[in-house]
This record gives sequence, C-alpha cells and structure tokens, in this order.
Amino acid sequence: MKIVIVGASGTMGKYLTSAFEKGNEIVTAARKGCDVRVDITSTASIENMYRQVGSFDALISTAGPTFVGAWNKLTDKEFRQGVEGKMMGQINLVLIGQNYINTKGSFTLITGALSHDPQRNFANASAANGAVEGFVRAAAIELQNGIRINAVSPTVIEDSPRYFPFFPGDMPVTMQQLEFGFRKSVFGANTGQVIKPY
Amino acid sequence: MKIVIVGASGTMGKYLTSAFEKGNEIVTAARKGCDVRVDITSTASIENMYRQVGSFDALISTAGPTFVGAWNKLTDKEFRQGVEGKMMGQINLVLIGQNYINTKGSFTLITGALSHDPQRNFANASAANGAVEGFVRAAAIELQNGIRINAVSPTVIEDSPRYFPFFPGDMPVTMQQLEFGFRKSVFGANTGQVIKPY
Repeated sequence: MKIVIVGASGTMGKYLTSAFEKGNEIVTAARKGCDVRVDITSTASIENMYRQVGSFDALISTAGPTFVGAWNKLTDKEFRQGVEGKMMGQINLVLIGQNYINTKGSFTLITGALSHDPQRNFANASAANGAVEGFVRAAAIELQNGIRINAVSPTVIEDSPRYFPFFPGDMPVTMQQLEFGFRKSVFGANTGQVIKPY
Repeated sequence: MKIVIVGASGTMGKYLTSAFEKGNEIVTAARKGCDVRVDITSTASIENMYRQVGSFDALISTAGPTFVGAWNKLTDKEFRQGVEGKMMGQINLVLIGQNYINTKGSFTLITGALSHDPQRNFANASAANGAVEGFVRAAAIELQNGIRINAVSPTVIEDSPRYFPFFPGDMPVTMQQLEFGFRKSVFGANTGQVIKPY
C-alpha cells in the first residue's frame, strides 16, 4: 500500500512512518526534512504535494498546528492558527486529495479528546478538532469510489511529556495505541468514525 | 434581563424575539432591519455592535451562514462561508462579547444536529457546528465572572419547510421546542452544554 504521511517530521509522524514502513511504500511530507514539502495552510502547496506524490492508497495526517495559550490572549487572530492549520489544512487535504487518491483509498486525520474533553489553554484546538470530526462524518457520506475517511482522536501522547502538565488526569496514550488507531483506519473498513485509541 | 438577539431578522431570530420580549428587554441585531446592525464576519462590526448595545445579560445567536450545496462544488473557497459565518462569527461574538457582558451573563450559540448526524450537501455546516460545539465546551471552563455558554442544536426546524427534503427521517423541531432550548440556556444554570431541544 502506498501511504502518504503528512506531518511526518513531527513526533507522531516519525513514529507512524517507522511503524508502517514494513510492507508499505511510505511517502513522507512536511514543511521540511521529508520526501515532499507541503505547507497545509496553502491549497497551492497541497495541490503541488499531490502532483508530486501521484496516485496513492492512504493519506495519514498528523499535522495539527493550533494556538496554545492563555484564554485572555485568545483573539480572532490567534484563533486563525487552528482554523488555517489543524482545521482547514486537514479539510483541504481531503477536498483536494480526493482527486488523486486511488479507488477504495482512505484519509485518516488527527483530532484529539479536547473536542469533547476541554482543558485550559486549548480552546482553539477544541474548536479545530470539533470541526474536523464534524467534517469527517459528513465527508464519509459524500466521498465516492469507496474512499473512506476517519479521524484518530488521542488524549495527550506518551512521547510528548511537555504537554502532560496541561492534561491533569488524562492517562497518556501510548505510541503503540496511537499507531493502532491509525492502523484501524488505514487497514480496516470503517468510515466516518472518530477512533479513540484508548 | 437585557437580551441581545443576533440574527434577529431570520426565522429563528424573529420567533425568539417574540417569545422572549415579555418580561425582558430585547435588543435585536442583524445585517439590516433590526435595532443594531452587525455583520458577524467582521470583528470591527461586532465590536461596534457591543459598544452600541452597552452592558447586557444574555446574548443569543441564531446567525449561521454556511455553504449548502453539492459535495463536488465544495472547495476551500465555499468552505469559508461557514468558517467566517457560523463558526468564527459566533466564536468572535463570545471572544469580544465577554468584555461587555454582565457578571453571570450567558452566551447561547446555534449549532445543529449535522455535527453528529450528517446529511448530503451540508458538510460545511457539519464542520462549523462541530467547531462551535468544541469551542462552547472549552469556553465554559475559561470564561470568568460566572459567565456561562451553551449551544442549542436543533435538527431541521418547523418553520423552514424548504429544508425538509434535505433531512429525510429527521422529525422537524417545533418552534416551541427551539424556544425552550434557548430558554434552558438563558434562564437555567448550565454551562458548556450542547442542548438538543428534542
């Protein structure tokens, strides 16, 4: 299976690249340091990525920039980080990518428990996650040619300990749990699901 | 109680204005035809509205422009209708309005069942609703001075029969059910809730 991993230079992306490379052809993409360069806040950059990649079977996105910070600093301007990044960036990966993906291919996006289980400083991510999850359910009934779409929604993840203090009482999701969440989406048959890998 | 109703020129807004005017001071707002003009896609216009309104106890929003149309017409450009309108428009009503609202005041936004129960042609609304619902839960743990926030999430509503064909199997929410959903948020004590008035 030919799998494109967007956000492959990040903590999750690196782990998933390593986990999935056995038996699959992996194409890594990120702003820099990967097979293909992509800035998901630009539709032109996304188009360019897909043209370089050619046809593929699965897209995994772990790319989710959002504003993290104090509520009293959160204005429209900061909110746009999550709108352009984790939300529209990932939505555009699907709206554009559906023209390049193979029949019966799949898109797997990243959201997170903040959509339903908020923590202070993360309102921007709560909104972006909620948007992507709503989109995933809607896209699942619209996509043609057997193309599937799911989201993987972890809590804080094991390999990002700097975030632990912001998630009191949230048991970190292990990297293997995260991997298995993506595995279920990419190699399973579900569509329109928000997979909680815990 | 002084209640600001944004989107007061629309089907829901008119009904709620009429329903809530007994015993309350209502200020109606919309692009035109109301007490105060506001274009919620502009933060400057929102600021201007709040300056004109002065202090208030509750804000009700029924303003939710989104793109409705065929999936194959849905690009980043059309998606922005819901991003700027129902999503950021309503989020900015809160981010800005928290500086004007009275202690123990409340914000009540409009979402809809499409966030969890999609229908064809409405992926933009599914995403916008999901974003607003995620935001409402996050804002509820951030807002100070006893300020509350909820969303009301109907299915298709009784007084919008032109939408019925797009919502097969969805029992229309009566206008009274809708009113009671908003009533629960404005006059109750809940916060961070998505109220399903059915």
